[in-house]
Amino acid sequence: MQTVDTLIHARWVIPVAPRGVVLDNHSVAIDGDKIIALLPTSEAKGRYSARHEHQLAEHALIPGLVNLHGHSAMTLLRGLADDLALMDWLNHHIWPAEKRHLSDEFVFDGTCLAMAEMLRSGTTTVNDMYFFHDAVARAGLTARMRTVVGASILEFPTAYGVDAEDYLSKAISSRDRFIGEPLVTFTLAPHAPYTVSDATFRRVVTLAEQLELGVHCHIHETEEEIAGSLKEHGRRPLQRLHELGLLTPNLIAAHMVHTTPEEIELLARQGVTIAHNPASNMKLASGIAQIQAMRDADIAVGIGTDGAASNNKLDMFAEMRLAAFLGKVGGNPKALPAAEVLEMATLGGARALGMADQIGSITPGKQADLAAVDLSALETQPCYDPISHLVYAAGREQVSDVWVAGKALLQSRELTTLNQRELVAKARWWGERVAKA
Amino acid sequence: MQTVDTLIHARWVIPVAPRGVVLDNHSVAIDGDKIIALLPTSEAKGRYSARHEHQLAEHALIPGLVNLHGHSAMTLLRGLADDLALMDWLNHHIWPAEKRHLSDEFVFDGTCLAMAEMLRSGTTTVNDMYFFHDAVARAGLTARMRTVVGASILEFPTAYGVDAEDYLSKAISSRDRFIGEPLVTFTLAPHAPYTVSDATFRRVVTLAEQLELGVHCHIHETEEEIAGSLKEHGRRPLQRLHELGLLTPNLIAAHMVHTTPEEIELLARQGVTIAHNPASNMKLASGIAQIQAMRDADIAVGIGTDGAASNNKLDMFAEMRLAAFLGKVGGNPKALPAAEVLEMATLGGARALGMADQIGSITPGKQADLAAVDLSALETQPCYDPISHLVYAAGREQVSDVWVAGKALLQSRELTTLNQRELVAKARWWGERVAKA
Repeated sequence: MQTVDTLIHARWVIPVAPRGVVLDNHSVAIDGDKIIALLPTSEAKGRYSARHEHQLAEHALIPGLVNLHGHSAMTLLRGLADDLALMDWLNHHIWPAEKRHLSDEFVFDGTCLAMAEMLRSGTTTVNDMYFFHDAVARAGLTARMRTVVGASILEFPTAYGVDAEDYLSKAISSRDRFIGEPLVTFTLAPHAPYTVSDATFRRVVTLAEQLELGVHCHIHETEEEIAGSLKEHGRRPLQRLHELGLLTPNLIAAHMVHTTPEEIELLARQGVTIAHNPASNMKLASGIAQIQAMRDADIAVGIGTDGAASNNKLDMFAEMRLAAFLGKVGGNPKALPAAEVLEMATLGGARALGMADQIGSITPGKQADLAAVDLSALETQPCYDPISHLVYAAGREQVSDVWVAGKALLQSRELTTLNQRELVAKARWWGERVAKA
Repeated sequence: MQTVDTLIHARWVIPVAPRGVVLDNHSVAIDGDKIIALLPTSEAKGRYSARHEHQLAEHALIPGLVNLHGHSAMTLLRGLADDLALMDWLNHHIWPAEKRHLSDEFVFDGTCLAMAEMLRSGTTTVNDMYFFHDAVARAGLTARMRTVVGASILEFPTAYGVDAEDYLSKAISSRDRFIGEPLVTFTLAPHAPYTVSDATFRRVVTLAEQLELGVHCHIHETEEEIAGSLKEHGRRPLQRLHELGLLTPNLIAAHMVHTTPEEIELLARQGVTIAHNPASNMKLASGIAQIQAMRDADIAVGIGTDGAASNNKLDMFAEMRLAAFLGKVGGNPKALPAAEVLEMATLGGARALGMADQIGSITPGKQADLAAVDLSALETQPCYDPISHLVYAAGREQVSDVWVAGKALLQSRELTTLNQRELVAKARWWGERVAKA
């Protein structure tokens, strides 16, 4: 008998790799921060003894979900303005509110609130993009959630910086302060082609190579963006970024709603990865991304919630369902089947982040980032296919337990690292301030 | 002081009529099955004493949701077959399973399961369409949910009937058995233009007039249906139904995905009402219904989940969010704003059912069909606009209490008329049988 930290016995284990496999009555053994074995429960009980043993008799155990595109702190602006066009929403509601209220404290409190919401819905990794990078990183360490801090870079001033050079230098010094933290990494996040100059994009390319950082950027979110680029630069944003050297496997393109077949070929050839945001793209009427065509071209696609201000929830279960639905809306009911969508929400996101050797599937040797979903609720009865239920029928409230790097962060729906009552109180306090001005 | 049965004090009351109104700290007084007053809590406490008093300090109280199109018993086939085209799904999966397993018991158990799921997510009225009408009605009486039994009529044999005449006579005798039950009414439900003959449609028109019954029919769900009708009848289904006399304010057209501008005019002129099913239409790749254009033409539109086999949940909160999103996808982010969608899911459904004088808004004199949604969860913090949160951020799990005709059917998330444990056990028993053959 080998003693391990944690042994989880589940009715179903869905490892995601290989795609579509459902293992009945299997167990996962965890030691330290890693998965060390995945085997039938009948064998596990003879081979391991554990300090923490979990019987999940009616649950599906899945890899923790990867939220591939978010602006976590914007939970504090949730529902502030709805039913508006993107540029109106940004120019007249979101940016003014951010200008008035953004601070290290706002971002820390908002990010902790977001992380609580994400953990309660099975998300273990967030690929964030916002300001006050230290605050985002500190929130990640407080929650013990796997956090990719996207350091926003743009030309115009905000409460956080004055110009691109300022954002860049803040990004680098923030990243330096958190080097060595296993749960926190950084990307450079030039905001979008319409807010970042050629010179700054070139600096980003150089710095990303020198410092081995990923790049995370909103690209081709709206037709307006493309029309603007044609007018200003004489080419579509993707072509411009290609000429600037941005299109590499290092780039996560958020949204990528509007693509020609040639652009899909280009993305595939360059190894660019995509963060698909179905709720935000629908809500802001940005359009329908050609995700099935991208998958057919073998482009790595993950799923993101975007910020709570344009969604308005950070629920990857809702997002998976929507991704599957939106994939079919063009007329192909077989597009983006459930198992493929679950893969996108886990391993697809891990691939995009360059972390597929560490997370995204239940594979011995990988980090123990896991979520358990209780399928005993009447809302998921009867159960012919647990993967179908995870994507089409289950709700976030059915997530019972979540582990990141082997540590339980949600236990029987209770958060272990974050104080729910305090988060709500702080959210209200900020909400009252934002509502006033 | 007047003594009443129930007094509900809520942080917000959203009466739906008039649209978009949010009343702070208001109370609803209920006596018998009716709402007798809606007034500020400060006044209510001086004016009424109540046998049951509820303090909903962080809740929004809304009219119970009206699920305008469902096949409740199909919960038992939830997730049996996904990611398929409508006709493949029907012909090779759903209809064979129904042929083997349909019975009075199957329909009763499946409908009770559906009603439990609907009540737990704030739905108080279901406009059903299925077989074994007595079983549906008995389930409604058991659950004490407001139930419109749609008596399916088609030409071909099923486990319930042999031909149209048989279905019709069963519909009428079943309806006769439940006359006088305040919670149970009937519609005639010719299945669809492609499964019902001209002669049967003519019989339906006559009987509906004679017996004062509504008519509920799948219409223009797919392009295939329209192409088939052009081939067989030389006209589109809607035109054929118009010539047969079906198009009246008495008709609820489910789906109505494909419409020309002239057809929208025709629907408006004839007063036909629409049951919009965003999830099902997306999942089966049926298309995108032109709901904003219908609303602009003043057509009454309600929202339905369709059956759990093509959704795969009966969650009107998910459906409202999807309706708002899908309305915008064509390019107009201002289409179907939150308050309009909430109206569709309540008063819109009531109008379609010809029940707007009884349900659909929190109005004194109407039936006390209500749902309370707890917005204190961190997923709905902060709260700038409760209507936005109801449509875009809240989850079904935030529904705390539900009343139908003044009786509490869900209390602090516990069902009062249905036994959850027993429902799950029965669902599993049926699931095992269906999975076997």
